[in-house]
Amino acid sequence: MDMQSSPIAALRIDGARLWQSLMDLARIGGTPKGGVCRIALTELDRQGRDLFVQWAREAGCSIRVDAIGNIFARRAGTDDSLPPVMTGSHIDTQPTGGKFDGNYGVLAGLEVVRTLNAAGIHTRAPIEVAVWTNEEGSRFVPVMMGSGVFAGAFTLEHALAQRDAQGVSVGEALAAIGYAGESGPAHAVGAYFEAHIEQGPVLEKHQRVIGVVQAALGQRWYDVTVQGMEAHAGPTPMELRRDALLAASRIVAEVNRIAVERMPHARGTVGSLEVFPNSRNVIPGRVKFSVDLRAPDDAQLQDMDAALRAACARIAAECQVQAEVEQVVYFPPQPFTPHLVQAVRASAAELGYSSMDAVSGAGHDAVYVARVAPAAMIFVPCADGISHNEIEDAEPAHLEAGCNVLLRAMLAQAEIAA
Amino acid sequence: MDMQSSPIAALRIDGARLWQSLMDLARIGGTPKGGVCRIALTELDRQGRDLFVQWAREAGCSIRVDAIGNIFARRAGTDDSLPPVMTGSHIDTQPTGGKFDGNYGVLAGLEVVRTLNAAGIHTRAPIEVAVWTNEEGSRFVPVMMGSGVFAGAFTLEHALAQRDAQGVSVGEALAAIGYAGESGPAHAVGAYFEAHIEQGPVLEKHQRVIGVVQAALGQRWYDVTVQGMEAHAGPTPMELRRDALLAASRIVAEVNRIAVERMPHARGTVGSLEVFPNSRNVIPGRVKFSVDLRAPDDAQLQDMDAALRAACARIAAECQVQAEVEQVVYFPPQPFTPHLVQAVRASAAELGYSSMDAVSGAGHDAVYVARVAPAAMIFVPCADGISHNEIEDAEPAHLEAGCNVLLRAMLAQAEIAA
Repeated sequence: MDMQSSPIAALRIDGARLWQSLMDLARIGGTPKGGVCRIALTELDRQGRDLFVQWAREAGCSIRVDAIGNIFARRAGTDDSLPPVMTGSHIDTQPTGGKFDGNYGVLAGLEVVRTLNAAGIHTRAPIEVAVWTNEEGSRFVPVMMGSGVFAGAFTLEHALAQRDAQGVSVGEALAAIGYAGESGPAHAVGAYFEAHIEQGPVLEKHQRVIGVVQAALGQRWYDVTVQGMEAHAGPTPMELRRDALLAASRIVAEVNRIAVERMPHARGTVGSLEVFPNSRNVIPGRVKFSVDLRAPDDAQLQDMDAALRAACARIAAECQVQAEVEQVVYFPPQPFTPHLVQAVRASAAELGYSSMDAVSGAGHDAVYVARVAPAAMIFVPCADGISHNEIEDAEPAHLEAGCNVLLRAMLAQAEIAA
Repeated sequence: MDMQSSPIAALRIDGARLWQSLMDLARIGGTPKGGVCRIALTELDRQGRDLFVQWAREAGCSIRVDAIGNIFARRAGTDDSLPPVMTGSHIDTQPTGGKFDGNYGVLAGLEVVRTLNAAGIHTRAPIEVAVWTNEEGSRFVPVMMGSGVFAGAFTLEHALAQRDAQGVSVGEALAAIGYAGESGPAHAVGAYFEAHIEQGPVLEKHQRVIGVVQAALGQRWYDVTVQGMEAHAGPTPMELRRDALLAASRIVAEVNRIAVERMPHARGTVGSLEVFPNSRNVIPGRVKFSVDLRAPDDAQLQDMDAALRAACARIAAECQVQAEVEQVVYFPPQPFTPHLVQAVRASAAELGYSSMDAVSGAGHDAVYVARVAPAAMIFVPCADGISHNEIEDAEPAHLEAGCNVLLRAMLAQAEIAA
């Protein structure tokens, strides 16, 4: 079907309605600073879920909840034997989260359904809007729990057994809010799209409205411990020092260099660093710090890992200290599905929105779903690239544009019924 | 007088007696790990002072205590109109201090008196052994309080008004232990020597027994604050970062370079560093750290200050962050008195001890006394250069050697009476 010449060439979502739904949902757990605190599997999460379910039912959807609490709102297709074309995200937030992270992807999906309803359009494949449980991981780890169980990244039993700081398990919390649904195998998905604020500064910097997400970066996280020799800063001459902070500082600079040499997509970050004994006139004897390396493909990530280990060994020898490197987390890179990525790119072009290729540096539910179904993501800018913050903000026009791209990309997969 | 041909050419202190006194004093506040915890102006400090006073009286000395609690044990000269030749140090310790830091200088002075008594030697000038109050500054600041008041570095009133963490003032604590002595102007000192463990690794490294201390390094201490931009480590590409820890790490490396380029005596140390928000996957928005620069003369210290400020400005610009440099402490370099330094060097040579020129990287009471009297220091090695630690250790033979040097250097100044 050639959408440009079809009756849906002029089809657009209702940006004002989308914005209003975002603002309405943001009142549940809304904070004085304009953010949202709606932690996974709390009473506020229940209220948010109930509101979504009510809206989805009003839009004619049927509701299914799975055993980890993921909600699937389904708009029937003309051929319900086809796997659904799915979209979605999450509505749990960080403790000092914003209105858009996750919520936008869910309500953009609902807006697609409402738009199809208003236009009287039927699709061959069903449309589903997913609300994934506990993406943020603020109360229960692992993060991206609902989509992780769906994709088989870890088991349902493992997830249900996790406990929060008060000792409450995921299973208990799900039952308490009434979202412990039916078990059973995850259903097949024909295609999955997720619209999300970028949570970074790239689109804004390049003044583009749509980010066409190629892949999610793979991640390797490390704990590095540098052991030197504590000594008095005054009487210890430079040539007799074994300064753990000097060695650590050189490694921090190397972590940066390793990523800078692999721009634009590689990332290298030391976010946390602790010095012992951390006294002004004592040469540090020990420094512990984190290293976070990210890259779009595993070969590059492996290469960065080797560069990190080589830098630690070389600098440790130069500074006469020991440096221990322990990998503590590994997420493989996740490419998105080329024909869906192309569908996003084409939809943006057809709609006249500026776009650019992008990568997802952070984790998203789409990264897990992509393990079991064709998947792609649509990024829209957020103000100053700020997210996980109560001042998180996004422009209504950008949110509307991303939702129009989502509508088109989903329709191209679900196909309009004759 | 030619000491080589005089009867005192063979004069030696009693190393076993010195060692025994060190061990006896170390029992007051002795810790299970073999260290000493005898904090300034506590009941244990009083017990230590009382023991010293008892020993000094037994050695025929008269005792004077000044208003800041400094104790002066005086062995009369044949010409008491001459200013005394003084030695001394402190007997207060760090909370996890050792047996030798300070205590050695005091008991080496006492051993000189005992040796002169045993040999029946009278000196023209009086000999004094000083116990300076609160050198360590663990309970009350400023550090080197007693010698600081003596030298006019700050006033008696200022020192007496300082309070510990419990709100007890120095004046109250002095009165409570019975060491609030007479006020009055500091008395003139003909020459001051202080024997001390090196508290560093240089003598041990070079296998020398005596350090002939040329000067105490000047010190400039700074607080540096680097302000960047906190951001999510995943979605923020390298070229859009304003990473405060990357900038701080580069400055740490520069602090080291600035000192290494000015070896052997310059020192540059970052001992304390704190990262905000210090979270594994957040690019650090702010880093605060200390810088400690030391050099033997003011021109070099000034030059290092300029190099630090230039490095901070350059690195801040490169990393697109702000770096604020605030100097918080300044101790001027303190050269020791050439003819007394030469007396130490000559005494070591006459006694056949290996020696080397040295600098004092740390503060000592002698550094303040040198402001008002000719002064010099004698260093002896300590095991692995470790001090301010319960495992602080020194070899009896080295302590004996330092005390023999002290005896000779003092005799050369005080002159043996005909």
